[in-house]
Amino acid sequence: MILEHIHEPKDLKSLSISQLEQLASEIRTFLIKKLSETGGHLAPNLGVVELTLVLHYLFDSPKDKFLFDVGHQSYVHKILTGRMDKFDTLRQFKGLCGFVKRSESPHDVWEAGHSSTSLSAAMGMALARDLKGEKNKVIAVIGDGALTGGMALEALNHIGHEKKNLMVILNDNEMSIAPNVGALHHYLGKIRTDRHYQKAKEELNQLLNKIPAIGGKLAKTAERLKDSVKYLLMSGILFEQFGFTYFGPVDGHDLAQLTELLEQASNVPGPVLVHVITVKGKGYSPAEADSHKWHGISPYKIESGQVLKAVGPPMYTEVFSDALMDLADEDKRIVAVTPAMPGGSGLLKFAAKYPDRMIDVGIAEQHAATMCAAMALEGLKPVYAVYSTFLQRAYDQVVHDICRQNTNVVFAIDRAGFVGPDGETHHGVYDIPYLRHIPNMVLMMPKDENELRRMMKTAIDYNEGPIAIRYPRINGLGVPIEKDMKPIPFGTWETVREGDSAVIAAIGPMVQVAEEAADLLKREGLNVRIVNARFIKPMDEAMLLQIAKEGLSMLVLEEGSVLGGLGSAVLEFYSMHKEHNISVRIMGVPDEFIEHGSIKEQRQEVGLTADRVAAELRTLLPRLRKRVTGQV
Amino acid sequence: MILEHIHEPKDLKSLSISQLEQLASEIRTFLIKKLSETGGHLAPNLGVVELTLVLHYLFDSPKDKFLFDVGHQSYVHKILTGRMDKFDTLRQFKGLCGFVKRSESPHDVWEAGHSSTSLSAAMGMALARDLKGEKNKVIAVIGDGALTGGMALEALNHIGHEKKNLMVILNDNEMSIAPNVGALHHYLGKIRTDRHYQKAKEELNQLLNKIPAIGGKLAKTAERLKDSVKYLLMSGILFEQFGFTYFGPVDGHDLAQLTELLEQASNVPGPVLVHVITVKGKGYSPAEADSHKWHGISPYKIESGQVLKAVGPPMYTEVFSDALMDLADEDKRIVAVTPAMPGGSGLLKFAAKYPDRMIDVGIAEQHAATMCAAMALEGLKPVYAVYSTFLQRAYDQVVHDICRQNTNVVFAIDRAGFVGPDGETHHGVYDIPYLRHIPNMVLMMPKDENELRRMMKTAIDYNEGPIAIRYPRINGLGVPIEKDMKPIPFGTWETVREGDSAVIAAIGPMVQVAEEAADLLKREGLNVRIVNARFIKPMDEAMLLQIAKEGLSMLVLEEGSVLGGLGSAVLEFYSMHKEHNISVRIMGVPDEFIEHGSIKEQRQEVGLTADRVAAELRTLLPRLRKRVTGQV
Repeated sequence: MILEHIHEPKDLKSLSISQLEQLASEIRTFLIKKLSETGGHLAPNLGVVELTLVLHYLFDSPKDKFLFDVGHQSYVHKILTGRMDKFDTLRQFKGLCGFVKRSESPHDVWEAGHSSTSLSAAMGMALARDLKGEKNKVIAVIGDGALTGGMALEALNHIGHEKKNLMVILNDNEMSIAPNVGALHHYLGKIRTDRHYQKAKEELNQLLNKIPAIGGKLAKTAERLKDSVKYLLMSGILFEQFGFTYFGPVDGHDLAQLTELLEQASNVPGPVLVHVITVKGKGYSPAEADSHKWHGISPYKIESGQVLKAVGPPMYTEVFSDALMDLADEDKRIVAVTPAMPGGSGLLKFAAKYPDRMIDVGIAEQHAATMCAAMALEGLKPVYAVYSTFLQRAYDQVVHDICRQNTNVVFAIDRAGFVGPDGETHHGVYDIPYLRHIPNMVLMMPKDENELRRMMKTAIDYNEGPIAIRYPRINGLGVPIEKDMKPIPFGTWETVREGDSAVIAAIGPMVQVAEEAADLLKREGLNVRIVNARFIKPMDEAMLLQIAKEGLSMLVLEEGSVLGGLGSAVLEFYSMHKEHNISVRIMGVPDEFIEHGSIKEQRQEVGLTADRVAAELRTLLPRLRKRVTGQV
Repeated sequence: MILEHIHEPKDLKSLSISQLEQLASEIRTFLIKKLSETGGHLAPNLGVVELTLVLHYLFDSPKDKFLFDVGHQSYVHKILTGRMDKFDTLRQFKGLCGFVKRSESPHDVWEAGHSSTSLSAAMGMALARDLKGEKNKVIAVIGDGALTGGMALEALNHIGHEKKNLMVILNDNEMSIAPNVGALHHYLGKIRTDRHYQKAKEELNQLLNKIPAIGGKLAKTAERLKDSVKYLLMSGILFEQFGFTYFGPVDGHDLAQLTELLEQASNVPGPVLVHVITVKGKGYSPAEADSHKWHGISPYKIESGQVLKAVGPPMYTEVFSDALMDLADEDKRIVAVTPAMPGGSGLLKFAAKYPDRMIDVGIAEQHAATMCAAMALEGLKPVYAVYSTFLQRAYDQVVHDICRQNTNVVFAIDRAGFVGPDGETHHGVYDIPYLRHIPNMVLMMPKDENELRRMMKTAIDYNEGPIAIRYPRINGLGVPIEKDMKPIPFGTWETVREGDSAVIAAIGPMVQVAEEAADLLKREGLNVRIVNARFIKPMDEAMLLQIAKEGLSMLVLEEGSVLGGLGSAVLEFYSMHKEHNISVRIMGVPDEFIEHGSIKEQRQEVGLTADRVAAELRTLLPRLRKRVTGQV
């Protein structure tokens, strides 16, 4: 075992290439074993074993800065920087983070979770280095999928202009999360399949040297051609056009070649791009065979590759998927749009049935949003299926293009609320604050899977502007599914439990938490009313006024930011209507980032549990008791 | 006069090229005359006179869709579609919009204001057309500056992949608002200066045809070379790589050539890119000489080009600029960052003095934000100078990169509040809602120019995370400027007028409105306290609790969205602290988009005037009177 002797990067420096090869094999065995127990991003990490080894072998972290785009492929980096013994706690509460984490190690210099940020960060670090007169290297590792994100292209453009010393390693594995979309991918494909370019270049140079100069003009043209040909045949034209010196492509699993090329590239001044071809899931055949499925995986049996999944009612994602299929059969206006998440958003069945009506734009959330606005203006009904956290990237397009023009775009916002092990970069706890204040926006959240179906129908039938449904990354409650989707009366809330001592206004999974809290209080003789506040905007004004009239205290319960959330909307409403005599409390996600763990642990962390809700209601006891006493 | 006979696009169809030339000249005269009275985007529109004429001459609007990126270059389009007689009201309240406006004309099919959206919109319209089985053309006109925006690049990538029929016209005027930045611009520059490529291509084809086939391999290489050379020499390689067929470059002021090329391009299937070279300000020498200054211009004297400017105290932008210079002299960590707005953000002086410490990334708000995060992590103090409305585009980067990593980035948010004639696409009324809920964010707004300086000092000295100052697009109050910048005690509000009948908590220019309202009420015997709520986050909790203790009613006054704004923060605070006995009212921007006009008119439209504030306070009269009576 070489691996057990590796405690920090310098332990690699004296190894031979063949020892590094053995180490790569040991790391793969370690990852396959550990992740079979914890789950995690297996395939991406198996793909970068050699690449990460070579980085730490050649360069000097943390003086030299390694920036991993998204950061889910940093497991090998974590192993090599002294965190091997923490993998039992991977992605667990208070355990090892599944992404790069500055607080874990000085070798972790840039955190992410969302894609396409590493080039901008590398540029910032290179600028800072030069202003400070320092000398370290800055190296960004980015996948071909992340390169379609607009901000990565903005960064490429700026880097090419500034000519700072920095290295971009293009980890080209032909597969980001879903098959990549776009011309850029097509371009990279062309490079990948034509490995003889280097040879062709040499032949052509010889050829051109033999051409007799037929007059000055033609000779000059030929000269110009030669320069261009050099680039053309080196295949990195696109990157060369952006101002990079291009190296590669190189086999990312060939340690000797990779070491040689990276060393060579690191000595070239200005921005360089090294094109590395890797295989996602390399070394574990189930993951190589289906790298999509094995991108992020639950615990599994190593031998069979069988994934151990909890059974239960369908996830909300699946319920959305089925509802969309049912609706699309009848309404030909419906088009589904996804930014590189056809699987995660439950759109694969839809794509199979309606290939023309399913548009995967790649990692391009902004483009997707504005494209939806235009499609809606032309009479279609685009359904933009997107995670809450990724829609953040299209905030301006939602304001400026979709809502300002009041277009009939439907948002299917998945992963609203806590997301569990992906942690703070992926929680969907801000969409209410960042969407609620936008004029024309309608925002809903279902309490169960059948209500999600009804909301889908409501949204598709709504033709007055944008409308959004947010739903969580959990299983439904197992309620019966009505095949016939009955729309929900617009802007109405629903009283799910009668009671006259106080009101809980809850959304989504918090309705169930409210029920449990109310059960606890019932034993104490308190009848708490529960309202399913399913329309977050517009709210049920008649019901809000009625509650004020009854003089009931209200607790708003939401798995989202307290600042700017539903509770805030309720407070604004009462202020606007001069109802100053109702007391409103809010329980939700406080003003801090909540780390990885299970969703249950995350809720406990912020107090979104039946116990805590009941306790909060008891603090309203004087008022409640009076009411109870009054009844006696 | 041909112009007076043009009421709709079809009136152009029978004109000869020479008549079109005369018409172009008449349109220029009209624009120069009208804009000398109203102000507006002169230079961009003078640059696209011929282009717009040819579009309406060749194609069939509104069946064929013209999408103008940003839309400030749509004046000629407005003239040709029956809106010539409305130019006296350009950019005025209830008058002609300075951008494309769907409600004005069926020929206006896509609205904007922010840049780089037109390609995504064109893709959406092309997809919709094909799904509906229709046949119209979709044509986007985009400037070279807008092409550096990430979402435009996302769209290029997707369009190249999908191969839909659509035309992109690259209006290459070498100047978006500021000199363009980036490799893309460098690339376009190379194209522009090499107009002999077509000829070279022909020569080379001849040359290559003469090369004897030296064995099969070499011949194949030469064949491949020929194909590549064709693209290379047509100069559109970058676009060809993205999957477009490239046409041009063509002189955008040569009606005959332009007509021929656009007609030719419109018959090619799949996505085409037509590269048109135009001169900003064409035909008006002051504007040609300084197209930057004449991009958007105030009223001016036609003969001299002298701009008629109101005199008054310095704009907040200038105050920011001077303060930054003063601070940068002492603090070498300071680096200024702008997304293509060095002039608008007041950074030209800074750039002249500190060229290495001023980074203009081009139109790339996302990249700029993340780059700032990385620079801050490396010990610099980046000052991201950006308009409130444009920072919307970096919302995710502010959450995910800047605030989540708690980096010491300073935001100088200009154009906060209403912006006047640019209207609904440019107002800075959402930054409080979209920033306030992000953990770690600090947010301030000064009541006058001296306080802005003090806040700059506060922000630069703050090393605990991100901190933002928002300031309006107006002149300061003319208060004395203290050269020595004294930081403001963190998180404190300031009582600017004592009073015990009620409290107005106001921010920025609303403090002055509060003063005027308080003056009105004073005549009625009511002493209203005014608090300058300069820290929007964190708020002055001690003062808030004190006000609650005194039992005073509070009116929150803000030139920003009521939903999710400062008032909402106050309500949340009192709810959290169980202070249910204080009544809080909010006056701000209601839940709708406010159109162009003067800032004064926009404030009147939403009731942010002293009269209305006084009236609102009088509705609190029972409580106020009681207090007054109590004093007697």
